[in-house]
Amino acid sequence: MKCKVCGKEAWIKIPSANAAFCEEHFDQYVLRLVERAIKKFKMFEGNETIVVAVSGGKDSLALLHILKRLGYKPHALHIDVGIERSDYSRISEEKAVKFASKLEIPIEVIRVEEIHGLGVIDLAMKRRRIPCQVCGLTRRYYMNKFAQELGAPVIATGHTLDDMVAALFANLLRWDLSYLSKGAPLLPSEDGLIKRAKPLTFVQDKETLIYSRLHGIDFASVECPESRFATFKRYKKLFESLEEESPGTKRQFFQGYVKNFRIFDENKPSYELKPCLVCGYPTISKVCSFCRLWFPEKAREALQE
Amino acid sequence: MKCKVCGKEAWIKIPSANAAFCEEHFDQYVLRLVERAIKKFKMFEGNETIVVAVSGGKDSLALLHILKRLGYKPHALHIDVGIERSDYSRISEEKAVKFASKLEIPIEVIRVEEIHGLGVIDLAMKRRRIPCQVCGLTRRYYMNKFAQELGAPVIATGHTLDDMVAALFANLLRWDLSYLSKGAPLLPSEDGLIKRAKPLTFVQDKETLIYSRLHGIDFASVECPESRFATFKRYKKLFESLEEESPGTKRQFFQGYVKNFRIFDENKPSYELKPCLVCGYPTISKVCSFCRLWFPEKAREALQE
Repeated sequence: MKCKVCGKEAWIKIPSANAAFCEEHFDQYVLRLVERAIKKFKMFEGNETIVVAVSGGKDSLALLHILKRLGYKPHALHIDVGIERSDYSRISEEKAVKFASKLEIPIEVIRVEEIHGLGVIDLAMKRRRIPCQVCGLTRRYYMNKFAQELGAPVIATGHTLDDMVAALFANLLRWDLSYLSKGAPLLPSEDGLIKRAKPLTFVQDKETLIYSRLHGIDFASVECPESRFATFKRYKKLFESLEEESPGTKRQFFQGYVKNFRIFDENKPSYELKPCLVCGYPTISKVCSFCRLWFPEKAREALQE
Repeated sequence: MKCKVCGKEAWIKIPSANAAFCEEHFDQYVLRLVERAIKKFKMFEGNETIVVAVSGGKDSLALLHILKRLGYKPHALHIDVGIERSDYSRISEEKAVKFASKLEIPIEVIRVEEIHGLGVIDLAMKRRRIPCQVCGLTRRYYMNKFAQELGAPVIATGHTLDDMVAALFANLLRWDLSYLSKGAPLLPSEDGLIKRAKPLTFVQDKETLIYSRLHGIDFASVECPESRFATFKRYKKLFESLEEESPGTKRQFFQGYVKNFRIFDENKPSYELKPCLVCGYPTISKVCSFCRLWFPEKAREALQE
């Protein structure tokens, strides 16, 4: 098999693109996929600071690497949610900080346990909530807060095509119009909510893995030990098997959604964002979900006033 | 485990309904599911003749049996599409005719090969088309034609929840708004197109199987030998595994679609039905797909005039 671009011996086959590439042109292929997403969805303007949320895993570190190579100005942010099992948080932070330093990209670390005295898992147990929900909500809150304090106009996350597809499928199974109206690769800013971009939206999990290996990126390969029951993983596997039988399925499914996205946007439940009575974060209720979760007493007080 | 209704020893567990039933109340449960669909979607008016398309398989024969029990006036229609392998068409017809006669329900048999000189598989090969597409199109054409000639206002088919879900998923993967606007359990009549109802829309494949066994329905158990590559089967299996892990998934997915159906209906491509220049069947082009498939010369002539 020959590289589609230069005709040299191919190094890798990409069935979804009906192509094979040598190392150099696989690298170019991934860069082009990211550039295409950035341009298509007008993710970044030019020389602004982009807050890149990095977990320390392959996807977010590859994203950091790619944005730097494409000439953007990333500022990394690692949120340590305080998961002790399998040394998950410690390893993740170490990898994220090391990699950002190597690339000479500034990195901020926010440690949930230092701020709140307990991690997301303990809080989830205390409140009898699903850990992944508590974790996601907490991370989104601190991402937004950090970008706002830094004066950065946009937050980029390392969600891949596989993540987008799994989330889309989950939201379609439940026909959650609210989430379905938020599943696009770019979420524009709203009063107090910073714009959120997913530049890896056309890139597959296995492609970020190969990209990371190609560039010797030293990522945290330990999976979150708390997400073992996550249905999300099941949906990813399910689409992986569909993709194997019919390459291009994931891309077709997600691009079709993006193309028809407006039908959900037009039909989403209407809401108005107002500052949270406790912390000032934009929310549709009087007190935001972050404060109701982390500061239930303050939330109760504020609601009683 | 006890029957949810009478407290007797349960005979079967239905995880999606979070219930177990004795034989008698499982039977009632299935009847209620069908009645609920008929009422919810206003499928039938009262004493009209309902053309029931029967393949001879468990679903369509169970539907015939249930409609008769519920006091409706079914008229069976079997379309022999001329599939010789595994004796498929011969066995199917035999089972359909035998069962209708047993229930004293009139049955009409239309034999595609007698009319056209060849079956759907041979035609598909000749035209290089996918057999299932040719077969479906041909069956829909003759169903409509027969109901029209009989003066029946509605056609009922044995599509189960599993069929609806698999079709919905296939159409979502491709974001086919046209098909997504036609996936509801009731398709109202349009100029020359008879109303089409799917009364088994809330009933699962395995429930029709158990219902059929319970009532000793002698159905054709041979699967269509030509559909072995059908992606449809793969999607059914996929949802069966989701259902096993999380009972009720299929129902939730399909009911969510029905609830939000209008967003596809409002966004469907606009079209106007006009009589086909060859056969008079309602079509959005000048010559209908049936005539273009079966009578390409006539179609060409009509288009040149």
